[in-house]
Amino acid sequence: MTARSGHPILQLDEVVHQRVRLGILAVLAEAEKVDFTHLRDVLGVTDGNLSRHLSVLHEAGYVETHKTFEGRRPRTWIVATKLGRRALADHLAALRELIAQVGEP
Amino acid sequence: MTARSGHPILQLDEVVHQRVRLGILAVLAEAEKVDFTHLRDVLGVTDGNLSRHLSVLHEAGYVETHKTFEGRRPRTWIVATKLGRRALADHLAALRELIAQVGEP
Repeated sequence: MTARSGHPILQLDEVVHQRVRLGILAVLAEAEKVDFTHLRDVLGVTDGNLSRHLSVLHEAGYVETHKTFEGRRPRTWIVATKLGRRALADHLAALRELIAQVGEP
Repeated sequence: MTARSGHPILQLDEVVHQRVRLGILAVLAEAEKVDFTHLRDVLGVTDGNLSRHLSVLHEAGYVETHKTFEGRRPRTWIVATKLGRRALADHLAALRELIAQVGEP
């Protein structure tokens, strides 16, 4: 962890911090790729909600999506980019710093 | 930490998780009371933005505000309620769980 100035909250990137997006990146950190339906179910969100948050992460360069077909059934796979994994790692470091600073209230 | 079902992301309360509100509760955990101006400067937000987030926390019963006068100059003090301190502690526990689950990517 590097020395930082200011309150750790200032290090939190809104793109990553938002609950559903943090969840997406966390799930992707635990698996090489996940399919859209699985991600939706794990995070307990709607298709539309998940799509919106994936778009934000995609625009930031943090995730990529790929389509495959199983027979005639399309599946959408989501993977985190190297940049996305780095962003999550940095974010978790900032959260650890925040937790350490607050301690056990 | 108690056993929980589902992904730790599901335990994150949006009222507390939002970056500025998490910052407000974190700063209040470190001090008995803080004044509005100090809080605004530490978190790097505008008056309007801080007011909006304080309203959300107030509606949830997590913070209270008090006005005092120094001479003719009004000061607004913000304190966390017991419920607010509990909500922050629960939230940090959920974040710790998330961090532990993701590990060091």
